[in-house]
Amino acid sequence: MTYGDIAQRRLAGIATCSEGGAGVTRLPFTEEHLRALTEIRGWMEAAGLQVRLDAAGTLIGRLEGPPGSRTLLIGSHQDSVRSGGRYDGIMGIALGCLALEKLRTEGAAAPCSVEVLAFADEEGVRFPTALLGPRALAGTMDLSVLDLADGDGVTLRDALAGFGCDPAGLVALRRERSDLLGYLEAHIEQGPVLEGANAALGVVTGICGIERNTLRFTGETGHAGTVPMAARRDALVAAARFVIAVSEEAGWTANIRATVGTLTISPNAVNAIPDITVLPLEVRSVDDRARADFAARMRGLGEEIASAAGLSFEMTRTYVQDAVGCDADLSDRLAKAIAPVDRAPLRLPSGATHDASAMSDICPIAMLFVRCRAGLSHHPDEYASAADMGAAVDAIAAFLSTLDG
Amino acid sequence: MTYGDIAQRRLAGIATCSEGGAGVTRLPFTEEHLRALTEIRGWMEAAGLQVRLDAAGTLIGRLEGPPGSRTLLIGSHQDSVRSGGRYDGIMGIALGCLALEKLRTEGAAAPCSVEVLAFADEEGVRFPTALLGPRALAGTMDLSVLDLADGDGVTLRDALAGFGCDPAGLVALRRERSDLLGYLEAHIEQGPVLEGANAALGVVTGICGIERNTLRFTGETGHAGTVPMAARRDALVAAARFVIAVSEEAGWTANIRATVGTLTISPNAVNAIPDITVLPLEVRSVDDRARADFAARMRGLGEEIASAAGLSFEMTRTYVQDAVGCDADLSDRLAKAIAPVDRAPLRLPSGATHDASAMSDICPIAMLFVRCRAGLSHHPDEYASAADMGAAVDAIAAFLSTLDG
Repeated sequence: MTYGDIAQRRLAGIATCSEGGAGVTRLPFTEEHLRALTEIRGWMEAAGLQVRLDAAGTLIGRLEGPPGSRTLLIGSHQDSVRSGGRYDGIMGIALGCLALEKLRTEGAAAPCSVEVLAFADEEGVRFPTALLGPRALAGTMDLSVLDLADGDGVTLRDALAGFGCDPAGLVALRRERSDLLGYLEAHIEQGPVLEGANAALGVVTGICGIERNTLRFTGETGHAGTVPMAARRDALVAAARFVIAVSEEAGWTANIRATVGTLTISPNAVNAIPDITVLPLEVRSVDDRARADFAARMRGLGEEIASAAGLSFEMTRTYVQDAVGCDADLSDRLAKAIAPVDRAPLRLPSGATHDASAMSDICPIAMLFVRCRAGLSHHPDEYASAADMGAAVDAIAAFLSTLDG
Repeated sequence: MTYGDIAQRRLAGIATCSEGGAGVTRLPFTEEHLRALTEIRGWMEAAGLQVRLDAAGTLIGRLEGPPGSRTLLIGSHQDSVRSGGRYDGIMGIALGCLALEKLRTEGAAAPCSVEVLAFADEEGVRFPTALLGPRALAGTMDLSVLDLADGDGVTLRDALAGFGCDPAGLVALRRERSDLLGYLEAHIEQGPVLEGANAALGVVTGICGIERNTLRFTGETGHAGTVPMAARRDALVAAARFVIAVSEEAGWTANIRATVGTLTISPNAVNAIPDITVLPLEVRSVDDRARADFAARMRGLGEEIASAAGLSFEMTRTYVQDAVGCDADLSDRLAKAIAPVDRAPLRLPSGATHDASAMSDICPIAMLFVRCRAGLSHHPDEYASAADMGAAVDAIAAFLSTLDG
């Protein structure tokens, strides 16, 4: 049985640690989480790791390297969205354990200490916050989030305590920067790029920054039968021009992904000319400057579109999160580790946020993307093949071998 | 005091026959309707008319013409939408009464019999049906609507009976075609055309036919961060191209008003590429052939847009109502009656439906539009000036004088 087959089997097994319903629903600090940790502990012990649970609910399996050596962290999250898939997050933990199991089986010693981290909560489904585990390690945690409650009124503090984690111990989790070699995360791509390129694995260039803007076009309503076309100031027509402009401009601009995912129309009747449309513009890029330039260009286009049609226009930035670059040296080592199966591995950005984003505050990061079927994620049909996961296990093991202690 | 001033004062007075809240809310077969009929009876009696209530709740004021003469009907509806204005519907009744009052005051006899009709229900707010009064006169009534209930479970049959109208008498209301000269309705324009042309009055060419279609673009959803622009099959972008195509094609096509007033998006999240958009396309025209041609052209464009973007497209016609032409002879007489104040009166279609639509099944119809401020209707701020209403009274009186018995 190959390491890829083992990964597939283990992920099928741990997928049963789930609430009922379609796909996998495993929220942090629940019965399902607890059962999942028993499985993960088994994976870690099979790789010869020393296992412990930290105060943030992160299960840590440590392989002690040569005396005085630094530590390479390999991690991802155990939790899922509601009715999610078997791979998102949990696969990165499984592959990290298998890479170390492979090295152990081959009798190869890692040149450094290695820890596999199974973070409790990245998806942020249960509590209105996420990334507690990596933020605790990075020392960027905001302790006030402990008072946030889930839908049943249970605070994060109480959920942690009920899980056997002492919230008072969170601050002490902060790692020493000088002790860390870096953080590696393997994750399904959640997009169609690798599949389209017929590639099993890809090296992530960085994690996109995100900004969200709320736009409002205001015209004039009227009866759909009584107002001639030439007299209309239709806010939906203006919004439509903007939606197309976003798609076209983003299409020819490097490193930009821009999306209008919703649209609110007033008065919203089949026989009334729309007077107000409100829409969100989300822009993502690994290049913060390119993202800001794009948003500014879209503001200008929105103003032009509105002005040409006699409408008013407002655009307000509601959220911004800067991009995080992956470390050049670690990424090159990762690419070299892939080279035996793909001589020029694809480099691609991550449009989604990951635990690695939070880890970038304490150490260099690198990410390995694994091809997933049809770009699908957060869905019961999410799928990665045993062969691709096996290639990832090989790559991670090879990557570890290249490190300096 | 001019007839326009009297109209303004009477409309202000009857506006108090309303439920509470902003503007006028007067639903059929209610306490407010009953109080309004007392006012309208007063207007009719001031014009020397014989007043009666028919089995459909239509208040009828009749002026007997020369023996053997036919009858010209002048009507509109007494009811309003919720929080509507003071003019829509009720103004046509007031102006008809005042035109006859003017003729009487001037000692001029009408060459035919004239009836002013105050229909109970055109807006269809209380019951899921409308136009009972004109349909009863035209003999096109569907008796099964009597079993339809309002929001409180009161059937139309019981509401009629409670209002003193005998549902068993409805069928006998049908008029003899040969007894009728025609039907004239004066109504606020509910659009901006007369105001834009600086004209008080306009002659209606016809009542637009209406068709509604439901369109669906189906593409593929995906994460807004992980799917590159070139790999997207975004259903909102396709719908946006369609919305613009509707607006542009309708702009250069004669006699077409086309509107997309709502848009439903799936999955409808700020960070998800839309996979499905559903939108209604409403097309109105006085020319049924032009309307059908336009809808067919838009179906073709929808298919092209979808196909070019790798999406699927469906378009289903959900509703159709044919156009009703105004009678050429009556309309020319009406135009001639306006000529003293406007030598070449504007001819324009009615984009909205009116009692006249139902009356067209039994006799020739004509409609006189009165300018309203900012094209506003169905709103507390709906407004027509005393001067414009005075001009309409003069025009209706002059029109009546031109008729043959």
